Amino acid sequence: MKIAILGTGSVGGILGRRWAQLGHTIRFGSRLPTSEKVLQLVADCGPSTRGTTWHEAITDSEVILLAIPWPATQEALGELGDLGGRVLIDATNPLTADFSGIELGHTTSAAEQIADWAPTARVVKAFNSASTKVMADPVFGDHRASMFYCGDDLPAKAMVRELVTGLGFDPIDAGPLTSARYIEPLAMLYIHLAFKQGWGSNCAFEVLKR
Amino acid sequence: MKIAILGTGSVGGILGRRWAQLGHTIRFGSRLPTSEKVLQLVADCGPSTRGTTWHEAITDSEVILLAIPWPATQEALGELGDLGGRVLIDATNPLTADFSGIELGHTTSAAEQIADWAPTARVVKAFNSASTKVMADPVFGDHRASMFYCGDDLPAKAMVRELVTGLGFDPIDAGPLTSARYIEPLAMLYIHLAFKQGWGSNCAFEVLKR
Repeated sequence: MKIAILGTGSVGGILGRRWAQLGHTIRFGSRLPTSEKVLQLVADCGPSTRGTTWHEAITDSEVILLAIPWPATQEALGELGDLGGRVLIDATNPLTADFSGIELGHTTSAAEQIADWAPTARVVKAFNSASTKVMADPVFGDHRASMFYCGDDLPAKAMVRELVTGLGFDPIDAGPLTSARYIEPLAMLYIHLAFKQGWGSNCAFEVLKR
Repeated sequence: MKIAILGTGSVGGILGRRWAQLGHTIRFGSRLPTSEKVLQLVADCGPSTRGTTWHEAITDSEVILLAIPWPATQEALGELGDLGGRVLIDATNPLTADFSGIELGHTTSAAEQIADWAPTARVVKAFNSASTKVMADPVFGDHRASMFYCGDDLPAKAMVRELVTGLGFDPIDAGPLTSARYIEPLAMLYIHLAFKQGWGSNCAFEVLKR
């Protein structure tokens, strides 16, 4: 797939590297596409990867990974304009400035808000509930970390599922986009365990079945 | 431990049965302690178990399991009055009447609301994020279901942890009571997977570590 990654932080970086290794074509969209950080990231990903402006990154893509900080999200989507039906993977969490909580209530979610701000995109929530260490390697012995995803557009979800599976995650379809109301707090729980309870980021959620 | 279980539905029933088997002393508090349902439950649990009024159940207990429907909770706690520092395990979820969502936002939780309504109890959130099938048997092959719990009183949490562990769960300390804001949505995610996505209730969350 042709994937535009908006955000060159830790989430965008690790997913870009891994997807590039798997043969996907990556365009990193950045405010500073010729900065040392972006050039290094592109070099890590190999010859088919490039760093460009946001608009260029999107133009040629089927899938957009939104991995920028929540406070920048509304303005970014306004600036991007028409997304022409592209799949938009929302990996944000609407954390408060001090990371102590979530800004939006159970009556909505970042994903739904984003769908409202980007009416021409097909939004799927995913990649918001595991650390980048786990994204780098979701295998835990004979088990795999689960990755929850949700959205209202079935073909878009099927594409995201393929991306999730390709990384080695156990993909968990959590239903419609409104389920982001539950997946976003799950990320808060993860953050709490990893950073407040001392688990570190080498832990992950799995859904056990029998 | 001497445990009062308020609520003789599926959660109270399974936890009472299993704790009784483990040698804990159970008092089922019920509006109808001589009803056929309660008598059957008591018979299942063995000779040291009794069904009584709510007040009698509590009088002699160290720990109270609150396993009544959320809409009945405020009135019940008002009626119970002074809880004298007892540990109150809150297993509720503040579900809306049609089970489609959670009534309370990320700025609070059922657990915190309950702590406010029951200022003389030490509230610990637990047992709200797994099905009764999983409570009956938390073992999945060589893995165990995780049970998240949180609260502000450390000795109370240590007691609850012992109860969680005794059932065979992997106990996960999720921190202060405010973490209920994340554990309650986790239950909604569970409900969604089990009943909307077709997983059924023989699934559970585990936190993987490495």
